[in-house]
Amino acid sequence: MDRSPLAPDRFPDLPPVAGVRVAVARARYKAWERADLTLAVFAGGAAVAGLTTRSKCPSPEVEHCRRALAAGGTARALVVNAGNANAFTGVAGEAAVRMLTGAVAAELGCAPDQVFAASTGVIGVPLPQDKARAGLEGAFAKLRVGSDATWEHAAGAIGTTDTFPKGVGRTLEIDGRAYSIVGIAKGSGMIAPDMATMLAFVFTDAPVAAPALQAMLTRAADVSFHAITVDGDTSTSDTLLAFATGAAGGAELGEHRAFAAALTEVCRELALQIVRDGEGAQKLIEVRVTGAEDDRAAKRIAMSIANSPLVKTAIAGEDANWGRVVMAVGKAGEAADRDRLSIRFGGVEVAARGMVVPGYDEAPVAAHLKGRDVLVEVDLDLGDGRATVWTCDLTHGYISINADYRS
Amino acid sequence: MDRSPLAPDRFPDLPPVAGVRVAVARARYKAWERADLTLAVFAGGAAVAGLTTRSKCPSPEVEHCRRALAAGGTARALVVNAGNANAFTGVAGEAAVRMLTGAVAAELGCAPDQVFAASTGVIGVPLPQDKARAGLEGAFAKLRVGSDATWEHAAGAIGTTDTFPKGVGRTLEIDGRAYSIVGIAKGSGMIAPDMATMLAFVFTDAPVAAPALQAMLTRAADVSFHAITVDGDTSTSDTLLAFATGAAGGAELGEHRAFAAALTEVCRELALQIVRDGEGAQKLIEVRVTGAEDDRAAKRIAMSIANSPLVKTAIAGEDANWGRVVMAVGKAGEAADRDRLSIRFGGVEVAARGMVVPGYDEAPVAAHLKGRDVLVEVDLDLGDGRATVWTCDLTHGYISINADYRS
Repeated sequence: MDRSPLAPDRFPDLPPVAGVRVAVARARYKAWERADLTLAVFAGGAAVAGLTTRSKCPSPEVEHCRRALAAGGTARALVVNAGNANAFTGVAGEAAVRMLTGAVAAELGCAPDQVFAASTGVIGVPLPQDKARAGLEGAFAKLRVGSDATWEHAAGAIGTTDTFPKGVGRTLEIDGRAYSIVGIAKGSGMIAPDMATMLAFVFTDAPVAAPALQAMLTRAADVSFHAITVDGDTSTSDTLLAFATGAAGGAELGEHRAFAAALTEVCRELALQIVRDGEGAQKLIEVRVTGAEDDRAAKRIAMSIANSPLVKTAIAGEDANWGRVVMAVGKAGEAADRDRLSIRFGGVEVAARGMVVPGYDEAPVAAHLKGRDVLVEVDLDLGDGRATVWTCDLTHGYISINADYRS
Repeated sequence: MDRSPLAPDRFPDLPPVAGVRVAVARARYKAWERADLTLAVFAGGAAVAGLTTRSKCPSPEVEHCRRALAAGGTARALVVNAGNANAFTGVAGEAAVRMLTGAVAAELGCAPDQVFAASTGVIGVPLPQDKARAGLEGAFAKLRVGSDATWEHAAGAIGTTDTFPKGVGRTLEIDGRAYSIVGIAKGSGMIAPDMATMLAFVFTDAPVAAPALQAMLTRAADVSFHAITVDGDTSTSDTLLAFATGAAGGAELGEHRAFAAALTEVCRELALQIVRDGEGAQKLIEVRVTGAEDDRAAKRIAMSIANSPLVKTAIAGEDANWGRVVMAVGKAGEAADRDRLSIRFGGVEVAARGMVVPGYDEAPVAAHLKGRDVLVEVDLDLGDGRATVWTCDLTHGYISINADYRS
């Protein structure tokens, strides 16, 4: 698979995160020559927070993470498998998760619910326990001799159909102490082709207790991972976890404004990288809705636009088809007044007060749509509600990836 | 545009409907050599019932029809424009509808709210009043000399990007009297590419008062037009109207079981023809959900499957990808228990009780998926809720129609 035309030039330089050790190994879940098991160990423990898929048919890994999050908010390790999602595999899948988390717990001398797990890949095939065990042993062996795995290695090892590894880092200083936040992710959206579950993991050495971390992560997700869509499909395995080791020292931060801002930046940048790797994506589309009844209504209207196949194909065709935007606003089910609506492409007003603007000049709009980054703005002129979401265009590439190949 | 591979061999033989006269004319809304204005006149009046788009940004025609339906339930005429949707055209569009319905009302000597109107085609350009007026004059001139327009002519004249004209007829006998029901439709779904609004009109000579007609039509729509999807997009102009002239005589039928059954058949067959003309459709997909908590939950799950781009591309690729069906069940938001779920393709059980069936033989499923008609069945094993919906696959054709061309 060619690297997405929307990919960044290169993987960023990411800072180390004190208290986190990472190793990657070859479990050989598929017949490929690459690392596909990632292990992160927090020797001194880490506060943990997380969000999992809203799917009613989650994978056993997701069910395990939900239980483990509820159990106490402390993590000693994270293990991620790529190539096999272990989803919809009945009791065999559950047994594999018990084995996996139990084996890590035994090695570290901790409880299994302090070990977090995520798997992504083919649905319907139980995670092979022998391969998982061999991979784990390889990863632990590397940690014992001092793993040389970088964040880029880890970002690559959790990927499946991704065309580039996804990572983001931020450093910040609070009360004279330096803290790092690093995130890695994989996936092509909030979405689920067989091998494109969204997984995202954030690590920090800042001292944040689990409840505060959960509160800040939930707010960050609302404007990042929950504000992106590739095709509106939701995986059985989507998982976002944040780990705070506190190893950089200092007093417990609580819900700290600067930390929350940096965490939100990391999440948003990771989310945008996921959209930039959307299947078949040729353009990154930002949809900004203002003037809705409230923020919730604005988000629903923005998502209706971002998920509309007709809007997405129009943008793929570089067509400033504002009629389709009107359609998507109308079908969202939220309050809208056709005769107050205005629409901009690339900052240029196209339609206002219920009809095309007088003397509409398509030239600057057409030029904007030829670029890689497309901005669609809708103002409803009804209230103060606003939301921004991101998606990609819908192209022949999406069809080729999902229809022309047999899973 | 090539005729859809899912189209019926030919337009059916449709019966006359007493009390309905039809003419088609060339308003020349676009630069094409075809009739694009359709006029149906009910000299003796007709009871009328209808449903319009749920879009919050409806066309002025839709707003007019809603007012006219509320006004009294009597129709003297229907006028349909193809090539210009008149949607999102502000006061100019509203003025065009007033002119159009007023002109017909003046000719027939009735109130404007006894004249129903629908338009389909390009969004954002006000319906040109001069063309509409010339078209109307042509249609009335034909009616005066005895129009020779057939149902097939009318079905053709209301079409836009349709690749075949859509019509269905039924005759039934009640208390020794023969009645006809005829329906015509256009569109590629409940959906709105610039020119694929769904319009459907049903005519009968049976004596049915408006309230009974509305009740039967609403129930029929639930299992027909509201049970289909091509891409989940909803037009600003979708309109379904039913007219009952009563010209075949007999006593008022009320909510009559046999009549309702025939009306439902006509609606379902029209709806299926619309899916068969879905943009780029190569396969007609029937999704049957059973065992849901209730019928409403079943419908939502069925629509989640039918609208999933990943399910639709998998079927386009003739891939029995039941993992994507699980994903679509999970994201629907309705109660589901992964470990009670079973899935069939073409009647063959693929997955049961949360995992693939033992000894799963893909050969008969693969053979089924190679055909034009695909059946996907999901049983949730939770309750008695059931629903059936229809869609088509998502192919390169859809992208080509909607992205590769400039509107």
